[in-house]
This record gives sequence, structure tokens and C-alpha cells, in this order.
Amino acid sequence: MKSLLLVAHGSRREASNEEVRELARRLASRAHPAFSEVSAAFLELAEPSIPDGIVRALDNGAEQVVVLPYFLSAGRHVVTDIPEEVQKAQSARPDADIRTVSYLGSAEAVLDVLMELANGT
Amino acid sequence: MKSLLLVAHGSRREASNEEVRELARRLASRAHPAFSEVSAAFLELAEPSIPDGIVRALDNGAEQVVVLPYFLSAGRHVVTDIPEEVQKAQSARPDADIRTVSYLGSAEAVLDVLMELANGT
Repeated sequence: MKSLLLVAHGSRREASNEEVRELARRLASRAHPAFSEVSAAFLELAEPSIPDGIVRALDNGAEQVVVLPYFLSAGRHVVTDIPEEVQKAQSARPDADIRTVSYLGSAEAVLDVLMELANGT
Repeated sequence: MKSLLLVAHGSRREASNEEVRELARRLASRAHPAFSEVSAAFLELAEPSIPDGIVRALDNGAEQVVVLPYFLSAGRHVVTDIPEEVQKAQSARPDADIRTVSYLGSAEAVLDVLMELANGT
């Protein structure tokens, strides 16, 4: 089984963190059956951390954890910070299959979403 | 003619701002002919500001300016700050047709994009 971990920045405003957790819950039904579980983790300011989120997924029986950065730009967080956090989990579980896919803003399909919103007026 | 203004937060890292401007350029070909122009503006830390971006679009001949917040969550920036900046332009140009559509993260289609990325492994 595969587990999908949606990784967001984390906010002091708890409603924003809850919005990400709710997104993970909504994603779960679409992700099934490719992913048996979808959860959220945060780079900072909210729980769980990225390593905790990964280890929790592994403890829940995941054979592979896919980390998906919920970020719009390839800044320091995406390029450096998230890989470092993922590496902490990999070091704790050397045999685990942990992969990080490209961040949301990198997807060409975001352009289609933007046009849908723009044309909504 | 309509003009689309993609509004991002703005970053101290100029490459991130340029990434948003590049996104606006890529969006332009899809937006045509519904929108004759697509440009970028920033809430802070980069130029142009939101009011400047709106006024510039009007000066370029736009009969309607559509403001699209390139944000993932409905935090203070989306709820309060962007509307305040848009209002500045509206006050400067009381007769102008300026509309703000919903922010990127609000679109249900973002879920599809996330699943495409997740399945890319």
C-alpha cells in the first residue's frame, strides 16, 4: 500500500492548517485505491512535522510514502528545507521507500485552473 | 477588452517574483482572446503593486480588470489585504470595472492537479 503525504508550510493561523488537513481528507477519496491513505504534514508552525508524518505513514503499514509539496514556487522551502526534512525520516528508516514528487506550482495544469477561475466572472 | 491580473504575495527572492511574471506570460496565450492582456502584480516586496498593476491595465485600454489571487489558502492576505489594495485602485478610478475572482486554492480542480502529481511517481 502507498501513502500520500501533502506537505504545506504551516501557519500561526490554525484555520489555515486545518484547511490543509481538510484538503488531505478530500483528496483521500480521489486517491483511493492508488493510495490507501492521504495525510497532511507541515514544514513548520504546525503538527505533524514532515518526518513525523512519514514515520506515522510507515507505521500504519505504508510500503511507499509519496511526499507532495503543496507550494506554488520553487523557493528555499521546496528546494532545500523539504528535502532535508524528508532525509531525516529516511535516516530514521533507511529501508523505507520514500519519494518526493514535484510541487504544485510546477504542474502545467495549474494554468488551466487559473483560466477556469478567471473565466468565472 | 479585458485584462487579467495575477496577484502573488511577492518575495525577497527575485527569482520567485520572476517565476510569477513568467507564469503570467505563459497564461497570456491561453487567456487570449477572452483576455487581451495578462500581467502580474504583488502584494508586497515586488513591483508592480496591485493598485499600480490595475491602473496600468486600465491605462492600456482595459474595459474590465480581473484580479486573480495566486494564493493557496484563504488567509489574511486573500481575505483582507488584497481587497484593500484593489479598493485603492477602485478609489483612484471610481468608474472602472474591477473584479476579483476566487483564489487558486479554492478551485476544486486543484485536487485533480495534486493527483496527477502524486501519480507521477
